Amino acid sequence: MILGTVVGTVVSTRKMQSLVGYKLLMVQPLYGGEERMLVAGDTIGAGIGEMVLVTTDETTQHAIERKAPIDAFIVGIVDSPPILGK
Amino acid sequence: MILGTVVGTVVSTRKMQSLVGYKLLMVQPLYGGEERMLVAGDTIGAGIGEMVLVTTDETTQHAIERKAPIDAFIVGIVDSPPILGK
Amino acid sequence: MILGTVVGTVVSTRKMQSLVGYKLLMVQPLYGGEERMLVAGDTIGAGIGEMVLVTTDETTQHAIERKAPIDAFIVGIVDSPPILGK
Amino acid sequence: MILGTVVGTVVSTRKMQSLVGYKLLMVQPLYGGEERMLVAGDTIGAGIGEMVLVTTDETTQHAIERKAPIDAFIVGIVDSPPILGK
Amino acid sequence: MILGTVVGTVVSTRKMQSLVGYKLLMVQPLYGGEERMLVAGDTIGAGIGEMVLVTTDETTQHAIERKAPIDAFIVGIVDSPPILGK
Repeated sequence: MILGTVVGTVVSTRKMQSLVGYKLLMVQPLYGGEERMLVAGDTIGAGIGEMVLVTTDETTQHAIERKAPIDAFIVGIVDSPPILGK
Repeated sequence: MILGTVVGTVVSTRKMQSLVGYKLLMVQPLYGGEERMLVAGDTIGAGIGEMVLVTTDETTQHAIERKAPIDAFIVGIVDSPPILGK
Repeated sequence: MILGTVVGTVVSTRKMQSLVGYKLLMVQPLYGGEERMLVAGDTIGAGIGEMVLVTTDETTQHAIERKAPIDAFIVGIVDSPPILGK
Repeated sequence: MILGTVVGTVVSTRKMQSLVGYKLLMVQPLYGGEERMLVAGDTIGAGIGEMVLVTTDETTQHAIERKAPIDAFIVGIVDSPPILGK
Repeated sequence: MILGTVVGTVVSTRKMQSLVGYKLLMVQPLYGGEERMLVAGDTIGAGIGEMVLVTTDETTQHAIERKAPIDAFIVGIVDSPPILGK
């Protein structure tokens, strides 16, 4: 999974019906530059500035109840930044 | 998902039958250089210059009615560029 | 999908039975350097120098009749290089 | 698969129910810089500093008993760093 | 698919039961630096120094008889390095 920080929200009125109901959050991965920025679906309620865990590709479908064309999904809010070596 | 701008159209007369009916649009991701340029299928009707949300890999199959060999698909047109930190 | 040019052929006599019958073509993506070179299966008959559209990962299975361990497949031959902005 | 070293643990109290029961370990791939750092699920019991083998994407589902939104999973602990050329 | 050279073997005694029976070989992709090094499963019997064709992600499951958490698998041994332009 990708560890990252929520840095913004994406608003898309004209979108696929199956995306309705999911917040779309911009996540900046902790490791790797801006080019790895991505948009993830969310139902946990992560807020701006929170550190989150994102799963990708088809595994996202195991985080939602009905199939949807979403290839990145927030699956957890991290309690505190991991301390490397512990 | 990938946030990007529609920058062109791809025309392919000799293609798989299962691709017929989908517009094929060139999308330049907002984050990451030209090397991340990709071709995405579209049924929403995104136009050149519009900012779109693209899903990838097998999750594309949840955006279309019949299976097709398309690994990137436009799932939304973004209302306005996201403001980071909000 | 990836837009690229066919630049060579791969010959593999000792291969999985399920790969038999597919031409294996080397494709240099239009965007991104040589490190993105890949080998794609083909049944459309793309020739050396032609510009093609390649789909990847599990979506390749929707381009072929029986399941095969191929993660990149040519799904179209592009009529002419896309003109950006049109 | 990815060869990497376990360098930390991730604690996420507010997470998807289907993630409960899996340790979440930070893995630094042996090849490629910090930008390739990832979080992997674990049931083998890998410890900090151990070299592990990680599988990714939907193939993770073949390492666990019930479906879960996890796109990276530890599938082995490597006996000793591979000697290239042998 | 990825074209690469077998450069080593990985030994993992403590591994998932479903990985038993597959040789685990280190493959250096022909295109792209060391950061793209990966570990692939093998049943064809590729040797050190041989050039191989590797498929990835869920498509690996079409190369094996029973499901296994392996996201890269050798599907062919290449007769000779491809000559670009032919």
